[in-house]
Formats: sequence, C-alpha cells, structure tokens
Amino acid sequence: TPHLKQQVYSNRGMTLEEDLNESNKYYLEKQIAVIHKKPTPIQIVNVDFPKRSAAVIKEAYFKQASTTDYNGIYKGRYIDFEAKETRNKTALPLQNFHQHQIDHMRAVVEQQGICFVILRFAAVDEIYLLEAVHLLQFWERQLQGGRKSIAKNEIEALGHIISIGMAPRIDYVKVIDKLYYQ
Amino acid sequence: TPHLKQQVYSNRGMTLEEDLNESNKYYLEKQIAVIHKKPTPIQIVNVDFPKRSAAVIKEAYFKQASTTDYNGIYKGRYIDFEAKETRNKTALPLQNFHQHQIDHMRAVVEQQGICFVILRFAAVDEIYLLEAVHLLQFWERQLQGGRKSIAKNEIEALGHIISIGMAPRIDYVKVIDKLYYQ
Ligand SMILES: [Mg+2]
Ligand SMILES: [Mg+2]
Repeated sequence: TPHLKQQVYSNRGMTLEEDLNESNKYYLEKQIAVIHKKPTPIQIVNVDFPKRSAAVIKEAYFKQASTTDYNGIYKGRYIDFEAKETRNKTALPLQNFHQHQIDHMRAVVEQQGICFVILRFAAVDEIYLLEAVHLLQFWERQLQGGRKSIAKNEIEALGHIISIGMAPRIDYVKVIDKLYYQ
Repeated sequence: TPHLKQQVYSNRGMTLEEDLNESNKYYLEKQIAVIHKKPTPIQIVNVDFPKRSAAVIKEAYFKQASTTDYNGIYKGRYIDFEAKETRNKTALPLQNFHQHQIDHMRAVVEQQGICFVILRFAAVDEIYLLEAVHLLQFWERQLQGGRKSIAKNEIEALGHIISIGMAPRIDYVKVIDKLYYQ
C-alpha cells in the first residue's frame, strides 16, 4: 500500500516523492511547468457527519492506481510520469509496475504525450529519466519470456541521468528540454 | 465535502461526474483521448494494518482540491477542466470556485493548455463548455466589485452548448475539435 511504502521511505529522510513534489513546487512558482502528484485513490466505505464539524472518513481502503503518479503541462505539451525507487543495485524489477500503469503509459504515448519513468537507485542515490517507449519494450520482452527486470546498464544506456541539485532538487524538465525542445 | 455533494446528486440518477467519467471511458476505449478524474484528495490520519488483510483507513478527512477535477491529453495537447453543476436557473454563482482552482486554471492557460469548465444547469439540463479565459475574466470582474456570478445569458453567449448523446454522453471533445483543431 502507498501508506506502508511511505513509512519505509521515511527512515531515510527525503523520499523521491518528496523531492519531486518540491521540484514541482519550484516549477509552479517560477511558472516553468504545472505538474502535480495525483492524490492516492481511496475507496471510501463509511463516513461520519458530525454536527458542526467536518465529515470524518471512518472506513476506507487504498485502491490500486489506474494511471501514473504525476501529470501536468510544460510548454503546451502533456507530461505524464511514474516515479519508482529500488534498493536493488543492478536492475529495476518490472514487478514495480502493474499492467494498468503500462496500458496508461502506452495510451499516453499514442496521444503524443511526453511520458517517462523517474527511477531512483537508492543504494547509489542515482536518478534516471527513462522514456516510456523503452519501458514498454522491456515490458514486452518480459511478456515474450525475457528477463523480469531492466538491467541497470540498460537504464544507463537508454536513460538520462539527473544530477541532484538544490532548486529544483530533481530537474527533470531540463532533460525534457534536451529531448523534445532542441 | 465531495461526499456530501455526491449524496445530493444521487437523488436524480446519473450525476454530471458519472456522465463525464463514462464519456472519458468511451474516449479511452476508442483511443480518442486519455482523460481521467483525479482522485478526491484525502488527509489520512490513522491506518490499521491487520495481519493477513488489507490496510484499513480508520480516520481521514476530505481536503480541498488544489487543482481541477479532470485532466489528460488529446492529440498531444494538455486538457484540464473543472465540472460544476448548479440548480440556479439564471446564473452560475462564482462561489462554486475557490481561489486555488482559479490560480491553477490561470497557470494552465499560461502554459498553453486547453482549459475550461463544464457547467450543467440542472433545472433545464443544459450543459456548456466555457473556456477558462472567460471564467478568469468573470472572476476578475467579481474582484473589481462586480457581480458574484456569471449570468446564464453570458454563458450562452460565450460558452458552447453540448447536447447530451448516448456514446459519449457528453461529447466535449467535439467542442475542443471545433475550437482548437479547425
Ligand atoms: Mg510511484
Ligand atoms: Mg467539480
């Protein structure tokens, strides 16, 4: 569940998600891009409506997201991405994705959106932007009986490393600029 | 709260939100556009982790959305809109919007996104698409001491009526086509 993950991450200070949220806040304030984290989807089962105070959700469950973590707009183009972190040192296991997310990314690519994954290898604190077209090919390779992960050297070869800065912390828009606007 | 609203709507069968969700499902299946309702933002306070079963949210609250209801992509362009329904027969009260949503729509317009409101006048069951640029002007008029609503005849003059169909029920992409792709 997203919540459980959150607890695990919080042991190491800033999470990838927090860094990205802060970067997006920077982009928004500087009028560079409008990109937001989507709220966690929740199935609400029971709500209390106390008099004179706010409604309280008393029973709810985490739902599996049908899309990706983040979307928004940059220079008129639609931006859509998923953020993933792994403690694995040599590969990103494909079990980090589920079919719904893959289907969503494929649909976005078909609509000519700018779609990618931001990957963090936690052990070495390296962050990569990998375009969805590559992820879709690795997913296909798995379906054809190939390996169930993307090797780190494949990510190094096809992805784009993002150095960690101060503001924004993760300047992925710089990579988008290089790939789509030059 | 979103939930309370939901209960009120459910008295009259399909809500505007349900109609839009169904239209978006149609667009997705036909590979016309990829547009989703954003999940309702929730502030989670307390979660239970029972052994051998799913985490249960035991206490949570509805948060005010900082953006709009829907976003996505159509022909490479970023789409962003808010859906509003009113029982008022002659005007849409501007109190249906809050400053965060207005700020978000202004930022999207500045990034050259396609941004609008889908309005339903429930009493006459008429649905309009009103581009965000107009809403922003009416918001400004209010701030300058002008009326606190948009008159229905202003919406008729500046907006685009959408007739209700079978599939999709609310074919707002047809209006986008007319406005941005012809
Ligand atoms: Mg993620
Ligand atoms: Mg709404």
